[in-house]
Parts: sequence; structure tokens; C-alpha cells
Amino acid sequence: MIRIILNGCNGKMGKVITDLSEKNSKLSIVAGVDKNCIKGKFPIFPDISKCDVEADVILDFSRPEALNSLLQYGREKNVAIILCTTGYSDDEIKKISTASKYIPVFRSANMSIGINVINKVLKDISAFLYKNFDIEIIEKHHNQKVDAPSGTALLLGNTIRDSISENINFVNGREGIRKRTHNEIGIHAVRGGSIVGEHEVIFAGQGETIEIKHTAISREVFAVGALKACEFMYKRESGLYSMEDVIS
Amino acid sequence: MIRIILNGCNGKMGKVITDLSEKNSKLSIVAGVDKNCIKGKFPIFPDISKCDVEADVILDFSRPEALNSLLQYGREKNVAIILCTTGYSDDEIKKISTASKYIPVFRSANMSIGINVINKVLKDISAFLYKNFDIEIIEKHHNQKVDAPSGTALLLGNTIRDSISENINFVNGREGIRKRTHNEIGIHAVRGGSIVGEHEVIFAGQGETIEIKHTAISREVFAVGALKACEFMYKRESGLYSMEDVIS
Amino acid sequence: MIRIILNGCNGKMGKVITDLSEKNSKLSIVAGVDKNCIKGKFPIFPDISKCDVEADVILDFSRPEALNSLLQYGREKNVAIILCTTGYSDDEIKKISTASKYIPVFRSANMSIGINVINKVLKDISAFLYKNFDIEIIEKHHNQKVDAPSGTALLLGNTIRDSISENINFVNGREGIRKRTHNEIGIHAVRGGSIVGEHEVIFAGQGETIEIKHTAISREVFAVGALKACEFMYKRESGLYSMEDVIS
Amino acid sequence: MIRIILNGCNGKMGKVITDLSEKNSKLSIVAGVDKNCIKGKFPIFPDISKCDVEADVILDFSRPEALNSLLQYGREKNVAIILCTTGYSDDEIKKISTASKYIPVFRSANMSIGINVINKVLKDISAFLYKNFDIEIIEKHHNQKVDAPSGTALLLGNTIRDSISENINFVNGREGIRKRTHNEIGIHAVRGGSIVGEHEVIFAGQGETIEIKHTAISREVFAVGALKACEFMYKRESGLYSMEDVIS
Repeated sequence: MIRIILNGCNGKMGKVITDLSEKNSKLSIVAGVDKNCIKGKFPIFPDISKCDVEADVILDFSRPEALNSLLQYGREKNVAIILCTTGYSDDEIKKISTASKYIPVFRSANMSIGINVINKVLKDISAFLYKNFDIEIIEKHHNQKVDAPSGTALLLGNTIRDSISENINFVNGREGIRKRTHNEIGIHAVRGGSIVGEHEVIFAGQGETIEIKHTAISREVFAVGALKACEFMYKRESGLYSMEDVIS
Repeated sequence: MIRIILNGCNGKMGKVITDLSEKNSKLSIVAGVDKNCIKGKFPIFPDISKCDVEADVILDFSRPEALNSLLQYGREKNVAIILCTTGYSDDEIKKISTASKYIPVFRSANMSIGINVINKVLKDISAFLYKNFDIEIIEKHHNQKVDAPSGTALLLGNTIRDSISENINFVNGREGIRKRTHNEIGIHAVRGGSIVGEHEVIFAGQGETIEIKHTAISREVFAVGALKACEFMYKRESGLYSMEDVIS
Repeated sequence: MIRIILNGCNGKMGKVITDLSEKNSKLSIVAGVDKNCIKGKFPIFPDISKCDVEADVILDFSRPEALNSLLQYGREKNVAIILCTTGYSDDEIKKISTASKYIPVFRSANMSIGINVINKVLKDISAFLYKNFDIEIIEKHHNQKVDAPSGTALLLGNTIRDSISENINFVNGREGIRKRTHNEIGIHAVRGGSIVGEHEVIFAGQGETIEIKHTAISREVFAVGALKACEFMYKRESGLYSMEDVIS
Repeated sequence: MIRIILNGCNGKMGKVITDLSEKNSKLSIVAGVDKNCIKGKFPIFPDISKCDVEADVILDFSRPEALNSLLQYGREKNVAIILCTTGYSDDEIKKISTASKYIPVFRSANMSIGINVINKVLKDISAFLYKNFDIEIIEKHHNQKVDAPSGTALLLGNTIRDSISENINFVNGREGIRKRTHNEIGIHAVRGGSIVGEHEVIFAGQGETIEIKHTAISREVFAVGALKACEFMYKRESGLYSMEDVIS
């Protein structure tokens, strides 16, 4: 049984993780950490440093500011850390890298298994297909999303770009009179209603197209990935890991 | 049996029309008109004024410059005219309107039955759905297309806009930090490979989406619509008709 | 302000309705009815007959067995009733019809606005398109769904069938050597993962296809429709109404 | 310049190959073989044995009956053979294998680059995804296709099945009351209009789906693949090759 300390247990993702973990017999949340110290099915501490429950991994869905205390706790108690928080500074990323010399640390740009599988597939096929296919990306999100294109669309676009030995330009929408050039990737940000998140890469060739599409149905997808990461990190050696390691 | 004079019979569309007409027992091409006077299954004349074959309708897939001689021939011989040529000037559109007082004339922005059915559906549902749904359009075409968005995307977009009693803006792609406003319609022009033509209207609401999509598989689709128009125009009274009349 | 009694307030849909109603300033839940009499933001009664709170409409997401007491309460207090429960017997449907002579009653096979809009579109276009297009339906649901095809797929299929003056057969999947006949509608039930619900009608013609697709993103879609129905039923005259009235 | 003898040059695919080869400066059709000995841009022989034009590869789009004379000619003249014909008997497949010991021979179940790339991707990801995702296949073809499911759907399905170490059942459509089992792959054969060919593999997981889709736009796609194969086979050593070698 993998024992988890859930950092940020009363946030939106914390609750989804808690619900999902109850259906999984291989792991158990033994403690939570949250400022909003509402009582639940496990003891909750206002700060990780106060937590005296023994555990195997810390699962973090909180904010970059929690990083220092998490890394300190991890090294003191020799517990693996799974960071699902985004928005770290370069300095914080360095600290994560340093800590991973002493304890096992996990960090991923996107916690969904599906996006990571697609990202790996793109690494494998983009260079070959680019010779004969034009590449475009369509992403769709709800009408409250403020940034375009999405971080995940850029993640996939950069993966494609990095695997092609030619200068690739991203083009965010098209208007007017201009023929497409081969070395551009059109990225199209559709916004509307309550669409959770869709990402589609189109390879358009002569007489055929290949489309690779990911649809997030609910936030649960990130919880599923996070618990997969907990299983993967259980009893690992020190080092820096990501979702790419989980799916390979 | 509907007797057709095919103006522009040796162009790409002329050949598709000829092939398709042979499988249709209700109509027959009795003469063609084309500068390239290559012999075929019917007599071909270099100019419509030289054509002495009796017919019921003239089907035109040529160029705007042919308009004057077509209208003159139509009025002299009292033959219906089906104009599938695009790019007419305002002045030419006036001439078409005038001619339609004396003979039956047909003209449509898009000859595909499917696009016209979708256009009609959009007229019916857009005003109601706009209250609760955001609207976006994605169109996809081959990498040789020079204009974006496509004329058909604008046709559909304008139909939606005209049915909503609010000021609607078209947005051609998105980039940067800005939340979607309800009164914008995102139009996304995907370009790649040899995609014939796809148009998709997305209504994205709370907890649900409706997508209405048209896919052109080949040029044949315009020939099918043109022959439908021939059947529709056979023995019509004088007046100006369009694909909308054919599908209603 | 429309005052709602929510029958079945502690079920899954009851909770979604409660959450959604809080964001809507035009209506308010003034009382709930549920066997599980857990305290909430409004008084909850174990039985509708015990409810002494004045209201404009009763919104029912419970079970067919509740029907008698609901109709009795509605007639006594002269309150509109919105039935979102499915699985009524023929006898119960008769009782609903009778009650609608005295009070306004609402009942729909599917509470989603989108599905009802699509159903109306299919009524309008199926007879015309059937002349030149083959029709197929694909529906997708999660892997726990026991029935195939879905009730909604049959609803849409029957709407198409009823609008065509020819004998139409439903074909649930294809295998072996047999050419498609024009008067069959293929219905394909895809099952997997946690797909909430997708329904797609395909019109496949010569050189073109039209696809009309509905995607349910979450249960919220039924709550949105139910609250729309509450607004629609407010101060209505007696009679039997459905989602079709709301969207027209 | 790669010199090609095109066997079956006056068939439908032969003409598409001829058209496409004219746009390709790396190769040239130097002779054709066809019973219908219509004059063209290159000499045409009624039988390969009569062909006295020097060439690098024979490209075959004809019938299994032509195999013996092709293999004999290939060994005599030491020319590579690219077999794009389907429907070989087990005995003929053995002969192909034997011939490949002496000369380079190419044979593939599907000549499209896109389908072969997808097939390779499925080999890589199916075993891993199967642990957490349900798998379904949808294929769409025109209304004249007699067999269901398509050969390509079975090719993809078998690739998935072979990469999973569990007994997998194909289910062709669903009807009635039965919950999906994890070890089944639903295969859905949509038929209608003039759809050229679509194949879609759906991985449906918890909170997310991955869809991998191939669309054939026209026959040209097989010609593109065939000319790619010609380039690949130019100056190869003896051996048996397939599209899998071309794309890796």
C-alpha cells in the first residue's frame, strides 16, 4: 500500500484526487496539507512541516511557493515528491533538479497520460511525415480561458518543431491572400462554452490526412495521471522523473 | 428529357458534368461551347452565338466575360440559364437581375446541395442558439488555396451574423491574453495537403456542443448540384432562382 | 423570481441543479423533497405532501413512483410540474396527459437543448436529403452503459424514419458480404472509457457528406435544460409541454 | 533517374500513377504493359515478356495472374519488382518469397503512407494504453463496398491484437443489453455515399480519449505510396520489403 501525503488537499484537484484514490486499493492518502483545515477522512495539517504521519510519497497540487518546504520535508524524511504544480521560475526549477540528486522527484508539464502518449508519438513520426505532409494544430477550450494558444498546444508544437531539422514558424490563424508555406504550423485556438480541452494535430498530405486527437473529458484525467505517477515513484531511486518515464 | 447546352464544356468542371450527365437518364447534353473546340460526344461551338442546337437550359461553368452573350442567347431563344460561374461585378449582377424578368435565370454562391442545406439550417437555429452558445467556424482546404477564410466560410458566417440581432465580429485566429467575448465568431482557416474542402460550425454551450460539418469529397459535388439545378429550372417561369429554391 | 420545489434534491442530478441554480438570478430553489433528508440551503421534506413552502414550479428528477403525489400536489396548489424522470408506463403517461388539462405539465425524452435542436433540424431536412444521401448514426458512451443503441440514438433515428415516406430499417453494425441498401440506417454503438455521450448523424451523398453531432460534456447539460424549462413554464396556462416548445 | 515499367498501365490506378509520375523529376515511366494496348506517352506492350526497354523497377498494379511472368522477367533482367496487387494465394506468396532471395521484391497490404505510419504507431502504443483504455475502431466507406469490416480495419485491429498479451475479441456492432468487456474491440463499418475511406482508432480512458484517424481523399494516395516505394527500391539488394521499411 502506497501511503500518500496530499499537499493542497482542499483545492479543486485535491478533492478529485481524494475521490479517485478511494477506488484504488494500491494506494491510500494518509494525510493532507491545506490552509483551509477542514476535517476530512484523513488528518489535515496547515503546513507540511507540521505533518507527523509516515508516508511514501508527497503528491503536490498547490502553488510554486510551497516548493521550499516540500523539498526540505522530502529530504529530511526521505520521501518521494510528485510536483503537479505549474508556473515554477528558473530558479525553482534549479532547486528541483538539485533535490533530485538526493531524493526521487517527479515533475511534468502535463499530467494526462494521453497527452504524454501523443507527445511521444509526435517525436517518433513528425520528422518523417514532415517530408510529405503539412502540419496544423487545432485546440479547443472553454470561453473563460484567457491565453491562446494553450500551453499544451505549444508543448505539442514544440515537440514537432524540435524533431524537424528545418526552421518552423507557428502561425496563429490565417487571414487575407497568402499561400501556405511548408515550414509553417498553423495553430488554431477555438474558444466556446464549457469545452474541457481538445488538442488535434493534423498531418495533411497528398491524397490523405492523419489526425491525432486528444480529448479531456474532465479534471479526473489529471488525477488519474497523478495517481499513476505515485505508483511509478514508489520506492524509486533518487533522480528526476517525468510522465515520459511513466508511459515508456 | 432535359436538353442542356454546356458552356465551358472542356474545362475541369465541364468534363465532370459530362461524365455525370451520362449516368442520368432525365437529361442529356446536346451541345457544348468552348474555345478549345475538341471533338466529343456532342457538337462543340467556339461561341454560344454559333450554336444552332435546340435546348431547354444553358449550364454555364465558364467566366464572367461570357455573361452578355449568354443572356442575349437566352432571351433570343427563350432558354433558361444556370450560372455556376463566380466573380461577377455589381454591374453584371444587375444585368442578371434584369434578364430574369424575361427568362428563368439561376445563380448561386455555392452549387453544393450540402452547403446550401447547412446554410438553411443555420438560418433557422442561429438566433435561438446564440442566446446560450458561442459560435466558431473551422474550414480546411488544400495548401494551394490563396485566400483565407474561404468564401464559403464567409457565406456561412454571414448567414449566422444576419440572423442575430446583435453586432457580431469575425475573429480570424487567436493569439495572446484575451478572453473570448460572446459576440465574436472565431473563424479558423486550416491549410494543408490536398484537402478538398471542409466547413464546420461549432455551437459551444454549457455542458454541450453542437457541430454541423460539411465535407466536399471531390469536384463531383458541384456537378451533382448543377444537374439538380437543371432539373429544377426545366420549364420554370421567368424569375431569379438559387440553390435555396432547389432545396426547399 | 421563479420559486422551485426540487423533487429528488439529494440525487446526483439534484445536486447539479442546486449548484447551477445558485448562479441564476431569475430563479431560486425554495424547498427540496428527498428521502435522504440531509440539511441544505433550503428546507427538505421527506414527501411532497408535507411541503408547505409556496412555489411556482415543481422540478422532478426522481422516479416514476413519485408521479401520483406530484400530480395531486400540483393540482391542489395549482403549481406547474416539470417531469425530467424517464421510464413512465403507458398508464402513467395517460395520467400526465389528464393532469395537463388542469395544470401546466412539462415532459421530455431528453432534457438537453442541443439534442432537441438537432432533433428539430432532422425533422426539417431528412426527407429532402434522403432522396440523395445515405443516413448513418454513430453514438458513443462510457463502458458502463448496458443498453445499445442509446435511447437518444433511437429518438433521433425514429425522427428521421418518421419524416421519410418509405420503409426504413435500422441496422446495428455490419459484418460480412452485403452491399448497403438505401433504405437502411446504420446505427453504431461505440463504448469505452468515461465518454459522457456523443451522437452523430451522417448524411453521405455523392461527392459530399453532412455531419450533425452533439456532444454532452457533463451532466450539467441536463440541469441547464431543466432550468430553461422552469423559466419557460413560469406562469404558463394548463397544457402539456415539451423541450420542443422551449426551443421553438 | 529511376526508370519504371508500369504493369497495368491502362487501368484506373495505372492512369493515376502516370499522371503523378510526370510531376516527379526523380523518376520516369519508360514502358507500360497492358492488354488494352492504347498508345500513350511511352511504349506499351501486351505482355511483360515482350518488353525490351531497359528499366530499374517494375511497378505492378494488375492481377495476381500476372505474378509468374513478372517474377521471371525480374530475375532474367535483374529488375526490382513492386507488387501493389492484392489477393495473392498462399502458393503465390511463397513464390514471391522465393524470388526475393535473388532480386529485390516489395509487397504491402496497403500502399498508403498514412495507414502504414498509423499501423506502426499502434504497434508502439497499444500494449501500454490497453492497460487503462478501451479500444474501438470506426471505418467509413462508400455505399458500393461489399465487405465489412474493411481489410484495412482488420489490418489495424490485428496489429493492436497482436501487441496485447491477452485474448482480444472483435465485436462488429452492438445491440441489446450487455456491458462492454475490456478485452473486446468494437469495429464499426459505416457505409454511405461516395466516402473514399476513413479509419479511426479510439482509445477511451478514464477522463480522456485518444483518437487516431486516417482519411483517404482520393486514389492518388496509393499512387503516392507506390512512387515512394519505387524510390525506396532503386538499387536495393535482393530481399523482401514492405511499406514498413519505407516509413522507418
